[in-house]
Amino acid sequence: MELSKRAREIQASPIRKLMPYAVAAEAKGIKVYHLNIGQPDIPTPQEMIDVYHSFSDKVLAYGPSQGLEVYRKGLVEYYRHQGIELQTKDIIVTTAGSEAIIFAMMVVGEVGDEIIVPEPFYTNYNGFATMAGIHLKPLTTYAETGFALPEDSVIEALIGNKTKAIMLCNPGNPTGTVYSKDEIFRIAALAKKHNLYLISDEVYREFVYDGTVHTSVLEVPDFADNAIMVDSVSKRYSACGARIGCIVSRNVTLMDAVLKFAQARLCPPTVDQLAANACVHLKDEFFTTLTDRYKARRDLVMEELKKIPGIVCKKPEGAFYIVAKLPIENAEDFIIWMLNDFQINNETVMAAPAEGFYATPGLGRNELRLAYILCKEDLKKAMHIFRTGLAEYQKRT
Amino acid sequence: MELSKRAREIQASPIRKLMPYAVAAEAKGIKVYHLNIGQPDIPTPQEMIDVYHSFSDKVLAYGPSQGLEVYRKGLVEYYRHQGIELQTKDIIVTTAGSEAIIFAMMVVGEVGDEIIVPEPFYTNYNGFATMAGIHLKPLTTYAETGFALPEDSVIEALIGNKTKAIMLCNPGNPTGTVYSKDEIFRIAALAKKHNLYLISDEVYREFVYDGTVHTSVLEVPDFADNAIMVDSVSKRYSACGARIGCIVSRNVTLMDAVLKFAQARLCPPTVDQLAANACVHLKDEFFTTLTDRYKARRDLVMEELKKIPGIVCKKPEGAFYIVAKLPIENAEDFIIWMLNDFQINNETVMAAPAEGFYATPGLGRNELRLAYILCKEDLKKAMHIFRTGLAEYQKRT
Repeated sequence: MELSKRAREIQASPIRKLMPYAVAAEAKGIKVYHLNIGQPDIPTPQEMIDVYHSFSDKVLAYGPSQGLEVYRKGLVEYYRHQGIELQTKDIIVTTAGSEAIIFAMMVVGEVGDEIIVPEPFYTNYNGFATMAGIHLKPLTTYAETGFALPEDSVIEALIGNKTKAIMLCNPGNPTGTVYSKDEIFRIAALAKKHNLYLISDEVYREFVYDGTVHTSVLEVPDFADNAIMVDSVSKRYSACGARIGCIVSRNVTLMDAVLKFAQARLCPPTVDQLAANACVHLKDEFFTTLTDRYKARRDLVMEELKKIPGIVCKKPEGAFYIVAKLPIENAEDFIIWMLNDFQINNETVMAAPAEGFYATPGLGRNELRLAYILCKEDLKKAMHIFRTGLAEYQKRT
Repeated sequence: MELSKRAREIQASPIRKLMPYAVAAEAKGIKVYHLNIGQPDIPTPQEMIDVYHSFSDKVLAYGPSQGLEVYRKGLVEYYRHQGIELQTKDIIVTTAGSEAIIFAMMVVGEVGDEIIVPEPFYTNYNGFATMAGIHLKPLTTYAETGFALPEDSVIEALIGNKTKAIMLCNPGNPTGTVYSKDEIFRIAALAKKHNLYLISDEVYREFVYDGTVHTSVLEVPDFADNAIMVDSVSKRYSACGARIGCIVSRNVTLMDAVLKFAQARLCPPTVDQLAANACVHLKDEFFTTLTDRYKARRDLVMEELKKIPGIVCKKPEGAFYIVAKLPIENAEDFIIWMLNDFQINNETVMAAPAEGFYATPGLGRNELRLAYILCKEDLKKAMHIFRTGLAEYQKRT
């Protein structure tokens, strides 16, 4: 029996690709520090857990396709606190950020159309694009400049008659880069000039450090028709298993279309929405504590990375990832070697080879994404093993 | 700003289309009996609710993309009890049956390919087909014959070089029709002969009456490569808000491809999976009580329908729907009139016009789908209002 072309071609997760090596190492009794996945270790807020504990409906029923009214109202208040004025009609709750991105791609473009995305980018954009039949056109950015966006002319050179949107991830996964207000406004002006949508993935909104201010695409004036924001509670509240996100736009026609896609799948999970709603009023201190912890971890990782001769890595201002260019040829080979052959006190480290985050063939082969989602003590040990292992690996090759 | 063709063309839910009329009626203080939606009223099992109440993980984390191992093992036992032998590798947990159908469509066909579906069919198949770029080719069935499948030659006449699969809903939504073992084996043989997948939507598996036996596509011998089953806990456990389903196939290559689609969206909801797992060992008595209740309701509705002169409606053996052909021209017009202009003691009835369940233009205009998801007392009142209203409506036109 034959499978469809898309089924044959859809990218396997590069983040999970090396998992068999980690499983094999763990089966041998080796402790593996996982810096490869974006699963936060911070406890989920008790306010959220309490909702599961007190759920008392007799029937666990469908909610509305656009999301529970009470939660959409909660989101309006959450965004207001972020300085973004919205109405409930601008928000459709989705099954995590994933579904929000799929919906966004399906409404802005037809099969064969293009969306421009700065690379390296969140690798699952590839899978969503395959589902939507959209071609992702990579806009290459570089470790040397902290993955900054290139000037207008470079972007404009990519825009063709099939281009329907530009998609940003801000703060960036995998880069940790936070775009400034000027940059967001500049890209918005470019999108407007060329009649393109600007899709902004802002799931790491609160994860900004060193006084950096996050700018949402929804803050751009006179841009209501072009701006689409996708969001998720996964990282914000350490609630990746809740699968709650949303798509936000003030473009009424576009949201009417999104609603029809949403109606086909009936609704997002009911109890998880109620749980997410318990977090919309979390005080600023929650996020201050959170960012203080992540910032300390980032600083620790950066300090250790800087000790590596020949490494290229600017300190990122957001999210909880760092992409580092290593003084070796093949980062995947290095990680496989770490899992197979290198331990200190029977412990080793896993990170995600960055090649899978690039759409341009050959790029990122000597880069790694490190997620700093471990407590400081573990992270310290992990970085020591990482540095020592890398030095050892370099001697071998 | 322009939207994609699929965004412009995706079908709005015909089940929800008349909701504004119901909302308006309810705003006037009229009680509306909703026979239009498939939201069961039976309480969700306490075993399931207890799981939400006792969830104690510190971090609500991602699960594996293929679903939690514990739940997939639970499902193996559930299906074993149904007489179906599976291994965990044959099962991928999905975000409700909806996602299972989208995955199935995407792996069997490419954009522009065709899937044959008996009509009337579950209207959201249209939305999923739009997302997958699949053309649904309707195989018309008729109220007069209880929506039985036509003979092979009629089906074969629809098979072209773009046809990749036949999709069945068994027991049927909206028809309530249950295909016999002979019919399932016949369609399977046809699929095999023409090298087609057979996708079987079996979410109403337990909802069969009068001693009818359900036959799964997974029971067909020597059919492992062709058979794809989609399932959901929504109706089975009155847990529509949990959004847990699965896709099942013994075709290893196909399941490898499904896993890659599943990896892109990371995982289905974690707590809901644990909750669903609490139900896999529910005793047969649970379903006997359930079907006894639904059967009594079906009998009540059928009794009332039979009193209507000129109605065409064979007693369905499964699910909790009945499609009735009415002695009027336009069922949608009738329902709008009921909501706007007809009440008994300030109460009225809503049902789903069946036209939206047909893909062939013009079919089903004088048909309605009634969901018997109310308690007997309410259903009795609703059917009295329905019959009286219909007689009144016929006098008017």
